[in-house]
Amino acid sequence: MATIIFCSLNKTAQTTARRCWSSHLKGLANAGELHLPLSSTHSPSVVAATRWFCRGTGLRFMSHGTAGKSAAGRTRRGALALSGAAAVAAAAAVAGFLANANHFQRAEMATSVSQAAEDKEEEGDILERCRGFMCPPVTDISVLQGRKEDMRTRMEMLIMETQAEFCKALEKVDGGKFKVDRWERNEGGGGISCVMQDGKVFEKAGVNVSVVFGSLTEEAARQMRSRGKVLKGKDGKLPFCAMGVSSVIHPKNPHIPTVHFNYRYFEVEEEDGTKQWWFGGGTDLTPVYINKEDAFLFHNTLKEACDKHHPQYYTDFKKWCDRYFYIRHRGETRGIGGIFFDDLDSPSQEEVFNFVKSCARTVVPCYLPIVYKHLNDSFTDEEKAWQQIRRGRYVEFNLVYDRGVKFGLATPGSRIESIIMSLPLTARWEYMHEPAKGTQEAEMMEVLRSPKEWV
Amino acid sequence: MATIIFCSLNKTAQTTARRCWSSHLKGLANAGELHLPLSSTHSPSVVAATRWFCRGTGLRFMSHGTAGKSAAGRTRRGALALSGAAAVAAAAAVAGFLANANHFQRAEMATSVSQAAEDKEEEGDILERCRGFMCPPVTDISVLQGRKEDMRTRMEMLIMETQAEFCKALEKVDGGKFKVDRWERNEGGGGISCVMQDGKVFEKAGVNVSVVFGSLTEEAARQMRSRGKVLKGKDGKLPFCAMGVSSVIHPKNPHIPTVHFNYRYFEVEEEDGTKQWWFGGGTDLTPVYINKEDAFLFHNTLKEACDKHHPQYYTDFKKWCDRYFYIRHRGETRGIGGIFFDDLDSPSQEEVFNFVKSCARTVVPCYLPIVYKHLNDSFTDEEKAWQQIRRGRYVEFNLVYDRGVKFGLATPGSRIESIIMSLPLTARWEYMHEPAKGTQEAEMMEVLRSPKEWV
Repeated sequence: MATIIFCSLNKTAQTTARRCWSSHLKGLANAGELHLPLSSTHSPSVVAATRWFCRGTGLRFMSHGTAGKSAAGRTRRGALALSGAAAVAAAAAVAGFLANANHFQRAEMATSVSQAAEDKEEEGDILERCRGFMCPPVTDISVLQGRKEDMRTRMEMLIMETQAEFCKALEKVDGGKFKVDRWERNEGGGGISCVMQDGKVFEKAGVNVSVVFGSLTEEAARQMRSRGKVLKGKDGKLPFCAMGVSSVIHPKNPHIPTVHFNYRYFEVEEEDGTKQWWFGGGTDLTPVYINKEDAFLFHNTLKEACDKHHPQYYTDFKKWCDRYFYIRHRGETRGIGGIFFDDLDSPSQEEVFNFVKSCARTVVPCYLPIVYKHLNDSFTDEEKAWQQIRRGRYVEFNLVYDRGVKFGLATPGSRIESIIMSLPLTARWEYMHEPAKGTQEAEMMEVLRSPKEWV
Repeated sequence: MATIIFCSLNKTAQTTARRCWSSHLKGLANAGELHLPLSSTHSPSVVAATRWFCRGTGLRFMSHGTAGKSAAGRTRRGALALSGAAAVAAAAAVAGFLANANHFQRAEMATSVSQAAEDKEEEGDILERCRGFMCPPVTDISVLQGRKEDMRTRMEMLIMETQAEFCKALEKVDGGKFKVDRWERNEGGGGISCVMQDGKVFEKAGVNVSVVFGSLTEEAARQMRSRGKVLKGKDGKLPFCAMGVSSVIHPKNPHIPTVHFNYRYFEVEEEDGTKQWWFGGGTDLTPVYINKEDAFLFHNTLKEACDKHHPQYYTDFKKWCDRYFYIRHRGETRGIGGIFFDDLDSPSQEEVFNFVKSCARTVVPCYLPIVYKHLNDSFTDEEKAWQQIRRGRYVEFNLVYDRGVKFGLATPGSRIESIIMSLPLTARWEYMHEPAKGTQEAEMMEVLRSPKEWV
């Protein structure tokens, strides 16, 4: 999984932020401005506008003064993907940016015009949209309003919306509530972690947003250059901004699969004010048992989203996903895949954003129908034990291979809980476990050992 | 933990070997040569001599023709420890050899004469000693008998003995039996994995032996040179031999701690026939709750073994252990430590071997008294849940930091089951878990966050 927010979490700042938000809510509640019931662990999603402008955190988003200038349309065909950034210590970034290993060559992508005309953004009023979030966005609303057309604003709004939409859909089916943690990063930016643990339906559900910025270290810049990026810093400094939403959901019932998704955006500003930018992301499914109908629904929903933008996207990104989520030492994939892409910077910023938006909007329709379908499936102790063994493999992938996790754990000041959040509540390792031939468990293994086409 | 055998496991060879051994045993049983009851998963420990000479595997141990010539006494003070070997792909070796990270500076060790005179080897007859093993040694007995004084023979006998002694002590307290897997490595050598799973006392207990040999890759040699070793190969080849015993024991009762140990020996032969050699190893304890009496017994047993050989050993190797078993992203050690050392090649091969032998012989007296003491301790669901969370940390250390595991997983052809064997049967990850102040769990965390002196 590619969840993480590697941020130097200032605990005091975090506590303070939460306390402020909490007392702020109290004020709102007293003033009758709250439209949703309060809970100590769950921020309300509808609050009065004016209060949000003065949360006291000031202008926390980077300001390059060159917004809008972008290197749109630049193609870096065949360039090694973002692996180099794994060495971007301290220059914290959304971990998902690191999720493409250098041994996975970048999928060839046409630069032709996207077919996303119909997917026109319905952005509306910033404040109005913020009302639906799990809590106020990472960047001050006044700042977002001041640069409404900027991609940073549009992407932050999208990831906040995706978080809220997904969390609410999960709360509805589970009946539980997400615990919402806001945190700040000393070097710039922060994040919002939503976690529901030991619910009725979900063993552990985490949905993270992070928006971080600062200056790339020399080493980070060198690494990026080594994979083909031309980056000219000003006085050795390269301002960057990284943001993303990511999630891992582990249900209790072994007939409901685990899902993971991550959508992210990266910007680096060069000496002359030119910005390099790219998007990455993906959604993938990890069932405990094969259900062809579920697999079709999941992949087909993704394919439809991809097809709106480019006929090759689904094919390329499905392959990339199978390659990325591969547990090499086991010779098996983590699950039945989905889509995965990175370093996407063509044909234009607008079109790639529209593609990413389409993907983010499939998260609920990809997964929730599967959850509802198996909600009341009965299961045996043996099926639960098999789920626990598969959970062990999930842990192996995440701790051994996931570049985001590895980078996050290696970066001093990371918010460890937001990284480790992706691990299941419980897992199991049995020595020399191998399902008997002809069983459903063996069928699962067969698929993991040789990825299938589902659509 | 530093368990592993990274061997290209030829499954056919493994199965064949097991089948041969099994039918061989049948023959022995029929001939009335077996002195112990047979079980399908447990090789007998007493078998007739002659049969062992013709297991059909031939001369599988490396033969340099220069045995005896060693670089004894060479000191490499301050040299970085064996971290470089982490890149020794394919040049398989006992994973424990890689267990010393390069950020852990080699402990300063005096080269003065050891005080191990009283620890004189009681080696006796090879065949007689083999009768006590879990199964025949990796190297053919005839080969071992032919080079009885060679360090490779003496060390292989020691690790086989340590495995048997420990396994039998654990079987006695548990009542269960170890499953014994023999495996061969295509490139040379093999191993013996003993695993007991879901016993009465032990959730998972693994004791591995491996004896592997072959030729170091150029990369491996380069890495070793980079940490100070002078290695001149013949026609670019550097024959090596690596062997070790390693173990991880996870008990069910949260009042019985997890233990890990690993003792290993490495040899590389240079162009002129000179051999470089070194030993490494250690034993460390991972309790779920602090028990000062247990901690004292454990550390004091190790200290007494160390003190027989050098007054500085315990102090240096205790510190090294605390540094090595450190979960950096958590800011806590894995357990309460013990001893850890590597690259030990002075004052003489004889004296270092005697020291390693003393350490290996403390494995049972270090741990078994603690097991017996807490055998019938009652525990609550909360205590069991805390154990599961600590198990999660164990998994984090082993998959993220342990150099042996990392190297093993990254090496094609590794015997994955012997690597993953070190993981507990079950583990748990709770979001933002932090024990309440004043609890026993909080006391444990305090010790893990700042290592104590126990003796």
